[in-house]
Amino acid sequence: MNPILVDVMRGGAVESTHRGAIAVVDADGAVLTSLGDVERPIFPRSAVKVLQALPLVASGAADQLGLSDEELAIACASHGGEEIHARTAARMLAKAGLDAGALECGAHWPYFEAAARALAARGEQPSALHNNCSGKHAGFLCLACAMHGGAPDLRQYAKGYVAAEHPVMCEVSAALQAATGFDLSGTARGTDGCSIPTYEIPLRHLALAFARVATGVGLGAGYADAARRLRAAVASAPYLVAGSGRFDTRVMERLGARVFCKVGAEAVFCAALPERGLGVAIKIDDGNTARAAEVVMAAAIEALVSLDDADSVFMRSLSEPTLQNWNGIQVGALRATDTLRDALAR
Amino acid sequence: MNPILVDVMRGGAVESTHRGAIAVVDADGAVLTSLGDVERPIFPRSAVKVLQALPLVASGAADQLGLSDEELAIACASHGGEEIHARTAARMLAKAGLDAGALECGAHWPYFEAAARALAARGEQPSALHNNCSGKHAGFLCLACAMHGGAPDLRQYAKGYVAAEHPVMCEVSAALQAATGFDLSGTARGTDGCSIPTYEIPLRHLALAFARVATGVGLGAGYADAARRLRAAVASAPYLVAGSGRFDTRVMERLGARVFCKVGAEAVFCAALPERGLGVAIKIDDGNTARAAEVVMAAAIEALVSLDDADSVFMRSLSEPTLQNWNGIQVGALRATDTLRDALAR
Repeated sequence: MNPILVDVMRGGAVESTHRGAIAVVDADGAVLTSLGDVERPIFPRSAVKVLQALPLVASGAADQLGLSDEELAIACASHGGEEIHARTAARMLAKAGLDAGALECGAHWPYFEAAARALAARGEQPSALHNNCSGKHAGFLCLACAMHGGAPDLRQYAKGYVAAEHPVMCEVSAALQAATGFDLSGTARGTDGCSIPTYEIPLRHLALAFARVATGVGLGAGYADAARRLRAAVASAPYLVAGSGRFDTRVMERLGARVFCKVGAEAVFCAALPERGLGVAIKIDDGNTARAAEVVMAAAIEALVSLDDADSVFMRSLSEPTLQNWNGIQVGALRATDTLRDALAR
Repeated sequence: MNPILVDVMRGGAVESTHRGAIAVVDADGAVLTSLGDVERPIFPRSAVKVLQALPLVASGAADQLGLSDEELAIACASHGGEEIHARTAARMLAKAGLDAGALECGAHWPYFEAAARALAARGEQPSALHNNCSGKHAGFLCLACAMHGGAPDLRQYAKGYVAAEHPVMCEVSAALQAATGFDLSGTARGTDGCSIPTYEIPLRHLALAFARVATGVGLGAGYADAARRLRAAVASAPYLVAGSGRFDTRVMERLGARVFCKVGAEAVFCAALPERGLGVAIKIDDGNTARAAEVVMAAAIEALVSLDDADSVFMRSLSEPTLQNWNGIQVGALRATDTLRDALAR
């Protein structure tokens, strides 16, 4: 039974609660914090996009195609479908000689509602470029371009790249397995929202992977260099990895390269903390939106990263966010529980 | 510790879980089903709008102003902010000699995203009429009109009607207390999303209130008549109580007057089942969106309402909904747990 990590408060009472688990691990695999069941495999969903992007850089594709920091950042993104996101993904595809028609992630209205309304106001419909995963998929297609060695029938080669058995996805899954040190052949495999496979992996292994991303230790030279480059790219373009108002963007705009964090669907959250050489992995049991996972991640950053007073106040606003109603009245708050704070302080 | 009521499945594995509690009670207060802690007070939020609308009818306001079924239905609604919803709320206000300026619920973009995009496409901004609670608030203002006896300074009298101490809100809270049989003076009070007070009430008492709504038993003649009329109004206009694609609307369009169900924020769900004389009240611990509460309510309706084969198949599609990804591929499902099904079958 996982402990309660987040309380939802209203009128001085606990209205709702979120149980979950968190692992904090260093690159040697030593477990600093373990709260709840960190050995049970969970689907990491989009929280591991940076691991899935390692081959894009390690293969040489990023250099061959001259990908920018913005483009590498969006390859690690779950973005809001704002104009800059759609445009950046389109530019990556163009560098590979492809267009949105090659994307196999499906189309949906931008997650950022103002962007969806703006699109509607222009009389347009969303395309696969607005899918929150379009940058990751553009990265897969850039990888396909490099793997195919510039042969003319790239579109045909790349077709079906989302399937677990496609050479491109095999490269992506190999990186995931190498970074986490977890055998993917024996674990449950599901299909993600964007149609690529997602594999169940324990939080302890996910945290280890992010400690490796933080330090390079245990990744091998190619992936270590790739991890460093991807972290730097995201730190220089944090708007590309999420977008307006989003936790990941706000935290990395504030703390820069000191934190690399990435949310995933069903309330998964992972982070690399380079200064401490640590990885963090979180899963909220109920999986229902990001609110609790964000509070837990904010509390972890507060506990594990050395912050000045202003940055502490900022992070506290994310680990104890207030809830306003439609009239702007404060009606409640989320808060990290003492159980969580105590475990992180040990 | 509340039991797991709903599993979220992906790739053959349990990806996420939802704990919660459910009470099924008859109008004499006999408990038919009790799973999890049904004595702990919880904020019922919008699930009790039908109880809060009892004075609108019992006071004579509905008759004096000639409110239609559509208008009574929207007084019990958490609607999607579609055109018909905004228009119906506006018409109620006009009957009371008021307009949207009297609403104190705040404005927000329509919850139904296509309605929000349509509004944006017309270059418009949302008003308080698009607030999901605008019908309930219009009902409060119609009640204010009757309580004020047609005096000319209605707008001044109604001002601040959302406050717990305002005569209008005192009437509303008195109905809530009478129906639930729970003393509100000694329980936690929070502020709801639309600025009115919300009081913590145990699930057992909420289920009792809905058994009373189902039967009239224990309500007193005025509220019993009001409950019957509100149930009939919603059964005849279920689109007004929620809207496009919504659980409450879909179930009541299908089952008519045999079920009155109403979702609330933070995963609360209540229902009156007139044929069985039962009330149902559900709270999912994590409170995070409606998905799990809907599955539990669907399972309760399956177990407690006599359904033909076609209706059973329909309800099973709501108690075991499949999850599709952006390419329309089935990637998972929600399902009521055996723990829940067994408790409901006893």
